[in-house]
Amino acid sequence: MTEERISLLDGAGGERMMELVEAVTRDILLDDGAVLEVPEFPVGGKLVFTTDAHVVSPYRFPGGDIGRLAACGTMNDLAVMGARPLFLACAVVMEAGFPRTEFEEIYRSLYAALDEVGCKLVAGDTKVVPSGDLDGIALTTSGVGVAQRVLYDSGLRPGDRIIVSGTLGDHGLAVLAAREGFAFQPPLRSDVAPVWSLVKAAMDVGEVTAAKDPTRGGLASALNEMARKSKVGIRLEEDAIPLRREVLAAARVLGTDPLDVANEGKVVLGVAERDAQAVLAALRRLPLGAQAAIIGEVVEGDAVTMRTSVGGERFVQPPVGDPVPRVC
Amino acid sequence: MTEERISLLDGAGGERMMELVEAVTRDILLDDGAVLEVPEFPVGGKLVFTTDAHVVSPYRFPGGDIGRLAACGTMNDLAVMGARPLFLACAVVMEAGFPRTEFEEIYRSLYAALDEVGCKLVAGDTKVVPSGDLDGIALTTSGVGVAQRVLYDSGLRPGDRIIVSGTLGDHGLAVLAAREGFAFQPPLRSDVAPVWSLVKAAMDVGEVTAAKDPTRGGLASALNEMARKSKVGIRLEEDAIPLRREVLAAARVLGTDPLDVANEGKVVLGVAERDAQAVLAALRRLPLGAQAAIIGEVVEGDAVTMRTSVGGERFVQPPVGDPVPRVC
Repeated sequence: MTEERISLLDGAGGERMMELVEAVTRDILLDDGAVLEVPEFPVGGKLVFTTDAHVVSPYRFPGGDIGRLAACGTMNDLAVMGARPLFLACAVVMEAGFPRTEFEEIYRSLYAALDEVGCKLVAGDTKVVPSGDLDGIALTTSGVGVAQRVLYDSGLRPGDRIIVSGTLGDHGLAVLAAREGFAFQPPLRSDVAPVWSLVKAAMDVGEVTAAKDPTRGGLASALNEMARKSKVGIRLEEDAIPLRREVLAAARVLGTDPLDVANEGKVVLGVAERDAQAVLAALRRLPLGAQAAIIGEVVEGDAVTMRTSVGGERFVQPPVGDPVPRVC
Repeated sequence: MTEERISLLDGAGGERMMELVEAVTRDILLDDGAVLEVPEFPVGGKLVFTTDAHVVSPYRFPGGDIGRLAACGTMNDLAVMGARPLFLACAVVMEAGFPRTEFEEIYRSLYAALDEVGCKLVAGDTKVVPSGDLDGIALTTSGVGVAQRVLYDSGLRPGDRIIVSGTLGDHGLAVLAAREGFAFQPPLRSDVAPVWSLVKAAMDVGEVTAAKDPTRGGLASALNEMARKSKVGIRLEEDAIPLRREVLAAARVLGTDPLDVANEGKVVLGVAERDAQAVLAALRRLPLGAQAAIIGEVVEGDAVTMRTSVGGERFVQPPVGDPVPRVC
């Protein structure tokens, strides 16, 4: 009998990771964050709490670094629960020999991202381990926010429109290109950014029924997870999905699907049909939402399908794990 | 000009780590946790939030493992802020190849420790990195608790008594002995345990002015930090400090001072003089506090000193870093 060992795929955000996590946890709602019921605080909103470990390789990439990623990753998990990000804690594990100037630069990036939202770093921890294969540094950020109305992945209803706040695949392909040493023209850049302003703008003008940040496993994972939890299907229009030409080209060269790789500055929303145009307009007024688009609708059923550019229809399956490992 | 690089000592919990952290953070109150001001929740207590990365090597040691340590480490940081631990988030970074049964066992230990306090695991993340020198696994836990009255490190006043809840040095020396392959008789065991019941019992019967869990850098670091922040001195009685005989013997063999190494199931309290006996009695009624002792008092000044067994007086300096690295 051979001992079962953890593989890189178990940490890649797909079905294998879900199975692993479900094997060790009890009654955790696997959403982007947890809603805290604090008896001492009965009114005024819901506290939301989340955590994310960041092990992106390389830790500096076009468009950002692990500091900005760690701030945005956790703030975005709060935002897609409907919560304004208020407080962040950051725990660093780094290898002995890590350059101090890089460590300081990473914190500057982290603070700059927090400042874009008005979120405060309030707690931290620092550990150093012997040199090895951590690629230098890992940042685990945890966040607390407050939601007036909590958004769950399970909120989609047939008839809702699916809106994405901008182009897809930018982060995953920028990190992969940087790691492999490919230079594309125009260069690929990560989209890493805080999405709270987008979520807030959408909630201010319309009924948002569900929200998710399409990180590991990309849009394909996010939509399949939302559909499964909501017990609905989703029908996408391929032509409506915003993609940068250079991302599409890089995806072809690198052999990946831009819908399967991580985004770090985008949000996927389910929006009541009657409010879809108002939400779209509100998103497009923001710099981060200039390329927002309605990409499909929620239907009865249990599958995510896509009407392709050439008029066919295909299933959009979640990847087993993100095809680009160590992307966040 | 040579580039400054991070060393193991920078992560060992002493002055060097403080300097490193202060270089990159702004206006963080460096206490055991952060008090969150949430405008939506104006009454009923204070929210406390904290985070800790755990990289103990070996990850299984006599008396516990990294799962129990990660649960207790963060719950104890909340407890010594005066907060009942309510919610925990756990982010795992592990190497590819880590045995799945060990991963599951670590979670069982974590849950068992949470159950001792009634704290709930509500959020998590799992990342896998290539095999290297992480010694398999790192757990970063973050916690949220509620305090009716917050305890700060800076609360000591001249005249207060210093109470420890039990024997010192057990964790650090048990981990060091396990790592080096030393077997002592009787065997050393880590004290890793949740201290909330101790802090609560003390606060229920007397005025606690400050509390701290003496982890990295041990009692020497904890007391020096409390004295510095409170702008007072502390005078200890060496004969009053509870130490197991086997810990003292192991410390001699391994060349360390039991007051300089980590504890993971102990609390140091400052208590108003008039309440010291009542608090001591309350602690001793609990299994974890059976060997609690009044070990000294707070005085005017700025030094931590100790009257030794032979009648001399010496300074108790904080170690530059914990002499046992990767102890938590």
